[in-house]
Amino acid sequence: MTFSDFGNKLCGESGILQLMDDIGKPLPKGVKPYRLGGGNPAQIPEIQQMYRRRMEQILNTGDDFEKLIGFYDSPQGRVEFIETVAEFFKNKYGWNIDGKNVAVSNGSQSACFYLFNLLAGTFTENGRQIKKRILFPLAPDYIGYADQGIEKDMFVSIPSTWEEEGNNFKYHVNFELLENYLEKNFSKIGAMCVTRPTNPTGNVLTDTEVKRLSSLADRYNVPLIIDNAYGLPWPNIIFTDDASPYYGKNIILSMSLSKIGLPSLRTGIIIADAQIVKALGNLNAIAALASGSMGQAIATPLIRSGELVQKAQDFVRPYYENKAKKAVAAFHHYFEGTDYRLHKSEGSIFQWILMNNLSVTSKEFYSKLKEKGVIVVPGEYFFFGDDIEGGLPSLKDHAHYSKCLRINYAGPEDEVEQGIKIIADMYRKFSR
Amino acid sequence: MTFSDFGNKLCGESGILQLMDDIGKPLPKGVKPYRLGGGNPAQIPEIQQMYRRRMEQILNTGDDFEKLIGFYDSPQGRVEFIETVAEFFKNKYGWNIDGKNVAVSNGSQSACFYLFNLLAGTFTENGRQIKKRILFPLAPDYIGYADQGIEKDMFVSIPSTWEEEGNNFKYHVNFELLENYLEKNFSKIGAMCVTRPTNPTGNVLTDTEVKRLSSLADRYNVPLIIDNAYGLPWPNIIFTDDASPYYGKNIILSMSLSKIGLPSLRTGIIIADAQIVKALGNLNAIAALASGSMGQAIATPLIRSGELVQKAQDFVRPYYENKAKKAVAAFHHYFEGTDYRLHKSEGSIFQWILMNNLSVTSKEFYSKLKEKGVIVVPGEYFFFGDDIEGGLPSLKDHAHYSKCLRINYAGPEDEVEQGIKIIADMYRKFSR
Repeated sequence: MTFSDFGNKLCGESGILQLMDDIGKPLPKGVKPYRLGGGNPAQIPEIQQMYRRRMEQILNTGDDFEKLIGFYDSPQGRVEFIETVAEFFKNKYGWNIDGKNVAVSNGSQSACFYLFNLLAGTFTENGRQIKKRILFPLAPDYIGYADQGIEKDMFVSIPSTWEEEGNNFKYHVNFELLENYLEKNFSKIGAMCVTRPTNPTGNVLTDTEVKRLSSLADRYNVPLIIDNAYGLPWPNIIFTDDASPYYGKNIILSMSLSKIGLPSLRTGIIIADAQIVKALGNLNAIAALASGSMGQAIATPLIRSGELVQKAQDFVRPYYENKAKKAVAAFHHYFEGTDYRLHKSEGSIFQWILMNNLSVTSKEFYSKLKEKGVIVVPGEYFFFGDDIEGGLPSLKDHAHYSKCLRINYAGPEDEVEQGIKIIADMYRKFSR
Repeated sequence: MTFSDFGNKLCGESGILQLMDDIGKPLPKGVKPYRLGGGNPAQIPEIQQMYRRRMEQILNTGDDFEKLIGFYDSPQGRVEFIETVAEFFKNKYGWNIDGKNVAVSNGSQSACFYLFNLLAGTFTENGRQIKKRILFPLAPDYIGYADQGIEKDMFVSIPSTWEEEGNNFKYHVNFELLENYLEKNFSKIGAMCVTRPTNPTGNVLTDTEVKRLSSLADRYNVPLIIDNAYGLPWPNIIFTDDASPYYGKNIILSMSLSKIGLPSLRTGIIIADAQIVKALGNLNAIAALASGSMGQAIATPLIRSGELVQKAQDFVRPYYENKAKKAVAAFHHYFEGTDYRLHKSEGSIFQWILMNNLSVTSKEFYSKLKEKGVIVVPGEYFFFGDDIEGGLPSLKDHAHYSKCLRINYAGPEDEVEQGIKIIADMYRKFSR
């Protein structure tokens, strides 16, 4: 059986799917697993209890449960949830939004699929076709975007710069390259997109960087998508104080309930200009009819009362920050004496290790580690978006391209520490 | 702001979205509403109680609730659910399937979006591009498909024939036209698709018709998608005995938990060849990461024990059949003396009335009815899929094109009856 170009583009040749398949394959017999690869959030008791209480409340309040399961929400989302989210952000941050600025999707991955293909790809205007792309100002960025374009070559990325401090480093936007590129190509850019905090690196774009990106968005009238899945005010997996929530003209803010404990209820939230929200609701109607209601119904009063945000601050951030500190300490302890740099751990559930002396590619190193039971994600996959017109340096020429690993530090502490130890031991073995 | 061709194709020019907008607009002040337009299933107490008990069971069984909300399922679906569904159908009907033949999506609307665009559109093979289409053997068919093609002109439909019996009629597949068309064009057809029971008409393709379609699928090696959202063994909104569940080589069976009371939990189920299931899982990974788990978790033991199917038989079918009979009686009572035909009410939550003497189009008639508070869906929208190559008669030339309405008969009986009365009164007013 053959599939369409759409089918082959999205899922036929995807390196990511091959990787997912490989990660899912059983380990060699008798090998103990160290699961540092996946993206599942941690199980935090206080958060679980909050949702359990809320579910019991739904069951104990008249026919709330029956009304919840028995009716489709509107394609834009559950009216009460949308209004509550808008009200919350308006009150907390003074953002000038209402229900017309909030759309819900079956997870923010779906929302990004809609957004990328709505704002980029082929545009026919007055009979003339032009191609627009999504511009990622800070590569490496989220692996899950890499295959979301329906058309070919829909993404273009600016390779990051970085600053080093001892055995730590931090990526920064190469604004010189970005501004130069935008000045020449803005008419071919449909939107910019960043994750903040960044999956895979744990980087958090500074407020200064975000404002500068936002002013570029305004100057060129190109929306800036900020994927805030790990950010403020929830889930608050962010350990720096120089990172306020940001919204404004030309900003499309993507949020989620996944990383605050509800990944399986698939609730993505987009805050944006009313015209974009309307288009997202329409796309959702055609492609999915409506989004799931359960996550929205559970979260509505928790957002309204402030409990969700308070619990994020009191339990989620400390939980991850504590784990992150221990993982950072383990990295520096076990890698001591090797040539390594660890990206500053500022947020998200990941850390990013750079091994300058690696004698094999990080893809090959991933396979070696898997033989030892250690599951990680090799760095190459996060360097996507080569400029097919050749105006930008290839991501493959980034000095970190085949020298990094993404690890999920949020698992059981012993498993994470032992996993890091094995990575360090193997790095010594596979050093030039 | 301008949107891509993808955005405009899916949601920019869609008549359906305009209709949805219009249906959603408030009625004139003081006008009593008769809501016969929507697709929401009915609220059936015994079904609601089953789900409430099941939700309580999840909460009362160790950490089942926490495990349910806190982990992503695989992109193909929840392993336990997939295995249970496969086992159930294998045991009940002897189908030769296992877990590799079952995929889950965020509702069957999403599954169809994936399937249509996977099996039709542009195919590039050996550098040569060909266009394939989805063929609907029995138009009119489901309005929700009409805009799901990412590319233009992806659908082609065979206008139905019909047989009349007094004031009733039933659509049939025009096999002569279909076979003739397929013989010439099979290489340009990616799949065939039918809803059974049919939304909007309440038709149920006979076993003979399905077998004949299936043998065409085999002859031309073109998959046949059977959308079984209203069918057997659940939700069992099907009132004829000549309609067995059907699966086999080249069949893609689409099912759902929506019409058995869980529309808001967005659970679509595809049973198909392993290669198609694998592709659907991959598409879901890229476009949505994973599907929601709640519907799957609630339904798993209910499917395994047979309770879901038993309750469908004991409560869902009788509930709708009783309502359907009353609505049919109301139609014949209030339309008496006019030139009308009612489609045989064999299944689904809809009935389809043909008014041969209508002096305005059914779109115009819809507006007149809305002024009186009666919300229905005009028939034109279900006649989509004109053959752009001109080999088939235009759907617009179907004798029923602008003379039918779809009504949802499942609402409160008084509201349905009074709504039908108003439609009949208005038909008398707008007769030639």
